[in-house]
Amino acid sequence: MENTEHLDQIRHSLAHLLAAATKDLWPGTHNAIGPSITNGFYQDFDFGERTISTADLPKIEKRMRKLLTKWGPFDEREVSITEAKELFVANPYKLELIEDFSKDGRTITVNDPGDFLDLCKGGHSGDPKAQLKYFKLTSVAGAYWRGDENKQMLTRIYGVAFETQEELDAHLTMLEEAKKRDHRKLGQELELFSLVEEIGGGLPLFYPKGTILREQIEGLISKLQKGRGYEAIWVPHITKGKLYEISGHLDKYDAMYPAMQIDEKDDYYLKPMNCPHFMMLYKTLPHSYRDLPVRWTSTTTVYRYEKSGELSGLTRVRSITQDDCHVFARKDQIGQEVNEMLDMLQDVYSAFGFTDFWVSISTRDLEDADKYIGDPDVWEQSETQLKELISSRGWEHKVVPGEAAFYGPKLDFMFKDAIGREWQLSTIQLDMNLPERFALDFVNADGEKERPVVLHRAILGSVERFMGILIEHFAGVFPVWLSPVQVRFAAVGEAHKEFAQQLAHELSDLGIRAEADVSDESVGKKIRNAARLKIPYVLVVGDKEVAGEDWQVRVRGEEEQITLSKTDFIARVQEEITQYT
Amino acid sequence: MENTEHLDQIRHSLAHLLAAATKDLWPGTHNAIGPSITNGFYQDFDFGERTISTADLPKIEKRMRKLLTKWGPFDEREVSITEAKELFVANPYKLELIEDFSKDGRTITVNDPGDFLDLCKGGHSGDPKAQLKYFKLTSVAGAYWRGDENKQMLTRIYGVAFETQEELDAHLTMLEEAKKRDHRKLGQELELFSLVEEIGGGLPLFYPKGTILREQIEGLISKLQKGRGYEAIWVPHITKGKLYEISGHLDKYDAMYPAMQIDEKDDYYLKPMNCPHFMMLYKTLPHSYRDLPVRWTSTTTVYRYEKSGELSGLTRVRSITQDDCHVFARKDQIGQEVNEMLDMLQDVYSAFGFTDFWVSISTRDLEDADKYIGDPDVWEQSETQLKELISSRGWEHKVVPGEAAFYGPKLDFMFKDAIGREWQLSTIQLDMNLPERFALDFVNADGEKERPVVLHRAILGSVERFMGILIEHFAGVFPVWLSPVQVRFAAVGEAHKEFAQQLAHELSDLGIRAEADVSDESVGKKIRNAARLKIPYVLVVGDKEVAGEDWQVRVRGEEEQITLSKTDFIARVQEEITQYT
Repeated sequence: MENTEHLDQIRHSLAHLLAAATKDLWPGTHNAIGPSITNGFYQDFDFGERTISTADLPKIEKRMRKLLTKWGPFDEREVSITEAKELFVANPYKLELIEDFSKDGRTITVNDPGDFLDLCKGGHSGDPKAQLKYFKLTSVAGAYWRGDENKQMLTRIYGVAFETQEELDAHLTMLEEAKKRDHRKLGQELELFSLVEEIGGGLPLFYPKGTILREQIEGLISKLQKGRGYEAIWVPHITKGKLYEISGHLDKYDAMYPAMQIDEKDDYYLKPMNCPHFMMLYKTLPHSYRDLPVRWTSTTTVYRYEKSGELSGLTRVRSITQDDCHVFARKDQIGQEVNEMLDMLQDVYSAFGFTDFWVSISTRDLEDADKYIGDPDVWEQSETQLKELISSRGWEHKVVPGEAAFYGPKLDFMFKDAIGREWQLSTIQLDMNLPERFALDFVNADGEKERPVVLHRAILGSVERFMGILIEHFAGVFPVWLSPVQVRFAAVGEAHKEFAQQLAHELSDLGIRAEADVSDESVGKKIRNAARLKIPYVLVVGDKEVAGEDWQVRVRGEEEQITLSKTDFIARVQEEITQYT
Repeated sequence: MENTEHLDQIRHSLAHLLAAATKDLWPGTHNAIGPSITNGFYQDFDFGERTISTADLPKIEKRMRKLLTKWGPFDEREVSITEAKELFVANPYKLELIEDFSKDGRTITVNDPGDFLDLCKGGHSGDPKAQLKYFKLTSVAGAYWRGDENKQMLTRIYGVAFETQEELDAHLTMLEEAKKRDHRKLGQELELFSLVEEIGGGLPLFYPKGTILREQIEGLISKLQKGRGYEAIWVPHITKGKLYEISGHLDKYDAMYPAMQIDEKDDYYLKPMNCPHFMMLYKTLPHSYRDLPVRWTSTTTVYRYEKSGELSGLTRVRSITQDDCHVFARKDQIGQEVNEMLDMLQDVYSAFGFTDFWVSISTRDLEDADKYIGDPDVWEQSETQLKELISSRGWEHKVVPGEAAFYGPKLDFMFKDAIGREWQLSTIQLDMNLPERFALDFVNADGEKERPVVLHRAILGSVERFMGILIEHFAGVFPVWLSPVQVRFAAVGEAHKEFAQQLAHELSDLGIRAEADVSDESVGKKIRNAARLKIPYVLVVGDKEVAGEDWQVRVRGEEEQITLSKTDFIARVQEEITQYT
């Protein structure tokens, strides 16, 4: 925590330095606000008629470093409203802020680390010269004043900053690497998905290759679920508002789309989550303690509102396909069911080669125990079980008291990708609220009605987001079983086209995704095209191959070709894919 | 046609007879309107305080037959408005109709076949006594006066009628049979699907068994498509209204749900069809004549408005999952592509055992040729090809000039089910409109941009409706490959439960949907339960089976058990299912 605070001070101070340099370069520029953010800082500017682009960043950075040599400690002092207004009379943004602060009765602080007076609540570096060196300006974007799209559009300049040069370098390398792996770029290059202006942001459409990738991912989940007693159900994408009145979401859930009035008296909603549909279907049948647990799953799309400015490729979308699972269980089954889920999760992570992850265990805040609903014994028992189940697997974890929802404890799985970024993936959540709201029951061994508990589970989370993460994690170089095209036959000339197509058909019939390139391009171009699409295996088909000689196989990412008989090659590919499909 | 007109006259006349009998039984009853409908007729009544139910139908029918003995020809004559109002002064419904007719300037006709004067435009039986004998009253329902839910609720009595006793009997037998096969009833009994008041009519939820049935049906389509060069794509369920401005649906398509305003300026819609999404995705990529045809498919759910009163189980729903396919082709590829579609359609129909179907070929009305868009040569060529392709397969068909859409000719496939009812299933539609509206193109052999044609195709039509039809066609007795549970092991006692479960697992691993009944019910009850669920194979597991003796197999619908070794039984089931999965 201390370290974070120190870094925040450095980053926040750099926002001031950025403002000072910019105003020094272009007098008359107004700076608005400039906070520290994850990995760095930004500052918003009103440049008047001037347009600033990334091309200007080196110049600004240079001026920042020059000014820094003259900077000392941030000389913070309180001023009166009147004095503040006089000091910032030329800057309409600061004046607006001062006006607001005065209404709130807040005191006003200014500082000046070196010929640059700014309005600020404090929290700065103690030794600017020594501490503010390890930064870099990274990008320029537009941002509305106070985040309000009816207000003026300002120019936001972003930078990153760390405590040491090594940390800064590592971060910049990671950013470079992330840029190469950007799933939005790779998504187009690999013909996976597309965003279409006329359809809308956050609503990706998937090309055939992207659909194959989706199907492989969803298919793995489906396959692993079937062997474990999970049963798929199907639910529609809309419902009467009545359902969300019962679940309690209608008043409380912000990301829901507005109602569609369909029948005279009923409002219908696009579903933003599946839980209420699952609860209702459980309720339509009688249940006995002997039939529990009921393990229902559905891979289905929900729709949520995200601000258009926050949408990003596949990782932040409005159409979210969840691998949703709800287990209706007796209280004595919670531990075993979670354990089954962890088994399955481990199998999924292994299939994708995810080894670097940790688990956040959200428990109650015992000092505020009244805010939690449900049987305290169930809380106690399940919190203990969750900790034991995770510990016994030797998984890195952190218990976070007070992070549990009011209706049950939770496990979140944080995955670290190939370049060290952390993504939240899977969630397992105990729920004692929805069974109550929907008045769910089962007949227990004594012949009495009893309330089941519900376990929510999603391993992928969102299929779209998972795909985005996968693309970046693998930089598009998917394992063979996930690759949209696994084998490509490149015909040398006219005489080899038919044979190449025959081979592609033959392999397709064996469950291998194979295709023939029978275009009129040169063999060299065909090989380059296949490499661009990151196809695992490429085989040039010429006279020798037609004559039945052994195959020269170009393996993705390897310099040397390997020689394999047709039978051995097919066996190799099948071995690489069958365990997952 | 003549026959239909004659039948219409009979049915319409019976509506008068029904009114006469009812008013004779309960003086003061007002009859409203009474037309002929498919297979019969109805008449709407205002019974005042009285409630009429199906229990009253025999009495009414008896009175109808009694009155009929005194009926002669319908003595039609024109009357003036004034006279009409005097004649029907006691009946507010007739008075309202007379008022409307007078506004429209229409003449008013009355008739009286025998002491029963009614208002009617004509079209009656010439010899009531002889022709009106073969009828039966079937049901009672509520209906709003003039179909307006703000107006008075009337009582509608339905009847069926034919020209001969044989036809009437056949129809009544069919109705009886249809009742037994009602997919709404079977859907609950076989645990396939459920409709939930709080979610909404026409929005079925599918239990695990129903989801398996869905998956089998959709999986067959997917499997047959893959081998034929069709590629699956994925599209979201919502879009900006802009898409439907381009496609032209926004103004013209009635069944669309109201807009959801999501972003400040954009209206979003739930998709009522997939075509515009497909067009847009095609447009995001460059295409060459060499890559055509592009064959894209998606099994995805669209949402359409149907009046709540018209919803019925799975056959009339609001959530419609389509096996949608769009082929983007060169003009010279139309014939071949349709032929490929017909091949696939034939494979699908064979898999379901559908042999009784005919094809409606919709062509232009050549006398009104101006209303059709697109190249007349393409029309000519494709109409000729469609006729030839269907004829050459020896399929029963009917050419219907003037039935084509303005943008292209069409094939509709009408399927006759096990009890003779006709259902429209598949459609293949040529489209020269959407490629134009979306300005789609490909680069032709001359390096110039050219417009492709689009072929729409759906074989199942709606998966939900198809399931409803399947359930009724098979009366729930699905072929083995479609059966949600294929094999059930019924454990005799405690000692056999584990073995039964082992067997179920073993078969599941071999791709057979097997389960063990390890409840505490008697063996007899277990066998009856399996029969109720129409499970194809039931095996009782007792000491002999544990000891490894041959299996006694209860085959669904057969009296005699058969004896098979475990290996032979597994081989038999696998043979029955592998070709479809």
